[in-house]
Amino acid sequence: MKKIGILMGSDSDLPIAEKAISALEEFQVPFEVHVYSAHRTPYEAADFALRARERGMGVIIAIAGMAAHLAGAMAANTTLPVIGVPAKSTNLDGMDALLATVQMPKGMPVATVAIDGGYNAGLLAVEMLAISDDELAEKLSFKKKADADKVLEKSRIVEEKYNK
Amino acid sequence: MKKIGILMGSDSDLPIAEKAISALEEFQVPFEVHVYSAHRTPYEAADFALRARERGMGVIIAIAGMAAHLAGAMAANTTLPVIGVPAKSTNLDGMDALLATVQMPKGMPVATVAIDGGYNAGLLAVEMLAISDDELAEKLSFKKKADADKVLEKSRIVEEKYNK
Amino acid sequence: MKKIGILMGSDSDLPIAEKAISALEEFQVPFEVHVYSAHRTPYEAADFALRARERGMGVIIAIAGMAAHLAGAMAANTTLPVIGVPAKSTNLDGMDALLATVQMPKGMPVATVAIDGGYNAGLLAVEMLAISDDELAEKLSFKKKADADKVLEKSRIVEEKYNK
Amino acid sequence: MKKIGILMGSDSDLPIAEKAISALEEFQVPFEVHVYSAHRTPYEAADFALRARERGMGVIIAIAGMAAHLAGAMAANTTLPVIGVPAKSTNLDGMDALLATVQMPKGMPVATVAIDGGYNAGLLAVEMLAISDDELAEKLSFKKKADADKVLEKSRIVEEKYNK
Amino acid sequence: MKKIGILMGSDSDLPIAEKAISALEEFQVPFEVHVYSAHRTPYEAADFALRARERGMGVIIAIAGMAAHLAGAMAANTTLPVIGVPAKSTNLDGMDALLATVQMPKGMPVATVAIDGGYNAGLLAVEMLAISDDELAEKLSFKKKADADKVLEKSRIVEEKYNK
Amino acid sequence: MKKIGILMGSDSDLPIAEKAISALEEFQVPFEVHVYSAHRTPYEAADFALRARERGMGVIIAIAGMAAHLAGAMAANTTLPVIGVPAKSTNLDGMDALLATVQMPKGMPVATVAIDGGYNAGLLAVEMLAISDDELAEKLSFKKKADADKVLEKSRIVEEKYNK
Amino acid sequence: MKKIGILMGSDSDLPIAEKAISALEEFQVPFEVHVYSAHRTPYEAADFALRARERGMGVIIAIAGMAAHLAGAMAANTTLPVIGVPAKSTNLDGMDALLATVQMPKGMPVATVAIDGGYNAGLLAVEMLAISDDELAEKLSFKKKADADKVLEKSRIVEEKYNK
Amino acid sequence: MKKIGILMGSDSDLPIAEKAISALEEFQVPFEVHVYSAHRTPYEAADFALRARERGMGVIIAIAGMAAHLAGAMAANTTLPVIGVPAKSTNLDGMDALLATVQMPKGMPVATVAIDGGYNAGLLAVEMLAISDDELAEKLSFKKKADADKVLEKSRIVEEKYNK
Repeated sequence: MKKIGILMGSDSDLPIAEKAISALEEFQVPFEVHVYSAHRTPYEAADFALRARERGMGVIIAIAGMAAHLAGAMAANTTLPVIGVPAKSTNLDGMDALLATVQMPKGMPVATVAIDGGYNAGLLAVEMLAISDDELAEKLSFKKKADADKVLEKSRIVEEKYNK
Repeated sequence: MKKIGILMGSDSDLPIAEKAISALEEFQVPFEVHVYSAHRTPYEAADFALRARERGMGVIIAIAGMAAHLAGAMAANTTLPVIGVPAKSTNLDGMDALLATVQMPKGMPVATVAIDGGYNAGLLAVEMLAISDDELAEKLSFKKKADADKVLEKSRIVEEKYNK
Repeated sequence: MKKIGILMGSDSDLPIAEKAISALEEFQVPFEVHVYSAHRTPYEAADFALRARERGMGVIIAIAGMAAHLAGAMAANTTLPVIGVPAKSTNLDGMDALLATVQMPKGMPVATVAIDGGYNAGLLAVEMLAISDDELAEKLSFKKKADADKVLEKSRIVEEKYNK
Repeated sequence: MKKIGILMGSDSDLPIAEKAISALEEFQVPFEVHVYSAHRTPYEAADFALRARERGMGVIIAIAGMAAHLAGAMAANTTLPVIGVPAKSTNLDGMDALLATVQMPKGMPVATVAIDGGYNAGLLAVEMLAISDDELAEKLSFKKKADADKVLEKSRIVEEKYNK
Repeated sequence: MKKIGILMGSDSDLPIAEKAISALEEFQVPFEVHVYSAHRTPYEAADFALRARERGMGVIIAIAGMAAHLAGAMAANTTLPVIGVPAKSTNLDGMDALLATVQMPKGMPVATVAIDGGYNAGLLAVEMLAISDDELAEKLSFKKKADADKVLEKSRIVEEKYNK
Repeated sequence: MKKIGILMGSDSDLPIAEKAISALEEFQVPFEVHVYSAHRTPYEAADFALRARERGMGVIIAIAGMAAHLAGAMAANTTLPVIGVPAKSTNLDGMDALLATVQMPKGMPVATVAIDGGYNAGLLAVEMLAISDDELAEKLSFKKKADADKVLEKSRIVEEKYNK
Repeated sequence: MKKIGILMGSDSDLPIAEKAISALEEFQVPFEVHVYSAHRTPYEAADFALRARERGMGVIIAIAGMAAHLAGAMAANTTLPVIGVPAKSTNLDGMDALLATVQMPKGMPVATVAIDGGYNAGLLAVEMLAISDDELAEKLSFKKKADADKVLEKSRIVEEKYNK
Repeated sequence: MKKIGILMGSDSDLPIAEKAISALEEFQVPFEVHVYSAHRTPYEAADFALRARERGMGVIIAIAGMAAHLAGAMAANTTLPVIGVPAKSTNLDGMDALLATVQMPKGMPVATVAIDGGYNAGLLAVEMLAISDDELAEKLSFKKKADADKVLEKSRIVEEKYNK
């Protein structure tokens, strides 16, 4: 199976990366994690993107805050799909990272998920692999049903308490 | 090859859809287009998502403006990756559609691209198919080089005019 | 008397739902509460809306955060008035939920109240029932006067302390 | 049948009011229209609200831009449900009117619709009357189906042109 | 000397009112304080504004949060200058109150100060009275010099510590 | 009578200044107009503020766009009340000028009016002079009634056309 | 004298670049212009930055819109000061480019100027060179005086027309 | 070597100033620090700017919050490059200070860094001095490499923990 490359611009983004990892482990999808900054280590970041496909990656997840350029730097150097996770930093509630990640110019898409949305980034990567992997698609369907059941179970608890 | 399903919430979104179509035609990726509204035709929209995988779709692109729920409605009913394109409407410059598309809850990712970013949505869909399609990946690399060449050609024109 | 259906997209919205409940109990208006997610349980959510009128509901209150689609999903499946309560989530102070709830397209109104405005949602539902229920209207008038009296009592306390 | 009171803060809001009127005429719901400003004619505005119920109104629609106080001034003086339509003015794209209309304090709900959403305001008023009017509810259902059919017809046109 | 009327929409705004009071006491300007809500006690609020001039008021300060209508309600009912203080509420950092206070329509100015700017509201009221009161103007000049001296004293402390 | 000083940061703000002038002429309040930039002519700007009171000014109106510092520069150099008018520039719809004008630090109030609100700035200056000028106050009352009458006249026209 | 490198991410930014050029020509500061995209031509962009100092550049001006990464890509690859000009694109009024340019992480400053502020970018580059170039500093002083004179001349025209 | 002037509008900005100081000390660049407010001590602030060049300053760093005018006041009175640091104050997350600092009019550039970006302000000042100081440039290169190494070291720690 293709691997998922998880990059974060700073090790302070690790809690978000761990949510992506948890999604991948849930589906037994292999991954590797690195701390590469688009600004502080531009060569290592670009090199990772350039060689990602040949090294067996299928998708790259890039997590960064503030003027978040990491996902864009990936997109500039690979034809693999790149998922961008805007990270909330101290100020502006992550709106800076959201706009710096999603508003990419023509020809350079970044698949952006919600601010701090590490888990959804992992899940989206699984969905991409599952386009041509029926077993993985099956697992996703199963999880969707389990998620629905959890909501309905919570509903039952709430209904019992409040509906007379 | 898997097909790309292109949905728009209103036929006023057609110019954005056509940009997605142009990207797909550029890579000879098959597609089908529909006008399904998450609010006005919820059954047809859900039904499209529910049967998309079995009907041979690989990716769904959903284009919508204002309180843009179409991409989310797709994500709720399929395990295929869903690409959301926020459409600028009369007011608020598309910020409403961007937030309504990208800020999805845990377990329901939508791969969001820039406001009115129809072309990038198409290209991202191609990248997703190309994860496991080397020929398509090759075409994407070729295009990336061609895009770079176009920029450099423009640079030469500018340089000739301004640099003495 | 018609019942008020209170839906929340996640049980983390329960504190907001309880404020709606407190308003309904204040006016002895019957209600029922459910946790239905527009994304995780789209069928149950749609089914609730579809059968709400025949089951004796008069108004539906939908509480959700982030890319808040729950109120819109209700509006898509019922002709009952739908009240949307945008819930503040971790980031963006509820602005995402506000825009995703209020900026509905033509033909699909959602009666949106303030961010986290659970109590006002309940009160608005009572006002809707009171259009054709003079006794309820009377109670609302009485409460309006009581609210005014409370403000005036607070004013007296402040006046005594500060005005010499 | 109860009447719908349509108020606008300035006659420059007339195009939005006309959209509300068109919705009401579509459902043959009686209405009356006035230009009352919360700031320039506070007495007339308050007086309208105070006497609205006894004069046979069922719902009040208030349309205003900028620091839009009209809907709030209605809510302060009636127990009828008040629908607020934020109007886009010259600057800020209607965001000022949206926040000034929707962020009402506890005890004073305003049912806010989208910026410039005159038609939806009218439709929401009809839905409120239809809570206890089965014939009106029937008409709303019929319209919902007609709206869906229009979308599907547009989809057919698009499908024929683009899907081969 | 004319009095300054200080109104707050809710007694939760008292800390802001106290900052206004401290400015007025600093200049020995008489004042009176009330809790009047534009929505909950519209008559008392309007009545205060209508009789303010004859009761010897010179300026009205109105403090309110969320869809802050109090300053506008004053402006609608008096020809005295009205100072509006937008109060930060739970969400949106006071941006809602700022826009609802400052974006007043033509003919109805509200002199808006910074979010939570109670002290400046008091000082601005003093400045207004000092237009035709040379003694008060003198005190304001004196305070301006004292404020400058405080900054310069702080500068000396910082300079001694950091500049070698 | 005291004069009103009207300053604009650039002659491109003249249309806004003319609206302020029209308000002052309406009330026969004397004024003088200057183009002084807080950045390009800081001495002339400061000098105007420093000598404004002794030269017979009662209020200063400062109109500026973008990082609008003119009102603040006035407030720094006078104890007269300063009215700030944020001017909309090419981008950001005047939000930059609004925040740069209203968010003044403690001890330096600027009486901020709506974006591009030249007329209200003039009217607010008249209100300030009218605190201690009963004749002017009378004129303001008269205008308030005339404004109300204009609204009611417009209402009659609308009512005749739409209410049957 | 050191040269100024002017880079734009797309030739659609040429009007902004020309404003920077006009500032540099005004001060007879040499420059060179290129169209290099951080995303489409990452190698050429990085290479320009890497060799800029040895090629005699003193400052780099980077102009880009949307998720504007060009200035950041320069900063990542040079120790020369980098001036970033956020360009307004179709949507969001340049707020996306502003945040993507200015919110740089620790260790990677970008000297950001106003949205579309090409002229100021050129002038800021001149100021940087003038730190150690007294002749250039003299020219800047001269221009500052000339700018002030232009404002005062405009003031005289306005004064003659409006002040009687 | 030229000195860097560090100004803060209030001593509450000292933590940001200390980050700028730490950058300057890291590169052994001389500096001096003052607390000068553009509003409370306009003469001292202007005087500092006016005499900065003759007193041996090379760059001025101005730190201020809210309607942050300090950097602009510097730019108005010197031809040295001015670096502006928007400081986050109690409300609005620093967006007010950012816009008040960066949106400077034509002819008055302020080199704006991120909200609360004291360290980057210091580093940018060093870069400006290093334009014509090869030794300083060398130190900057060395630091850039050290920063990259720190990121790579962090990456190794993360890789060891997560990549199996």
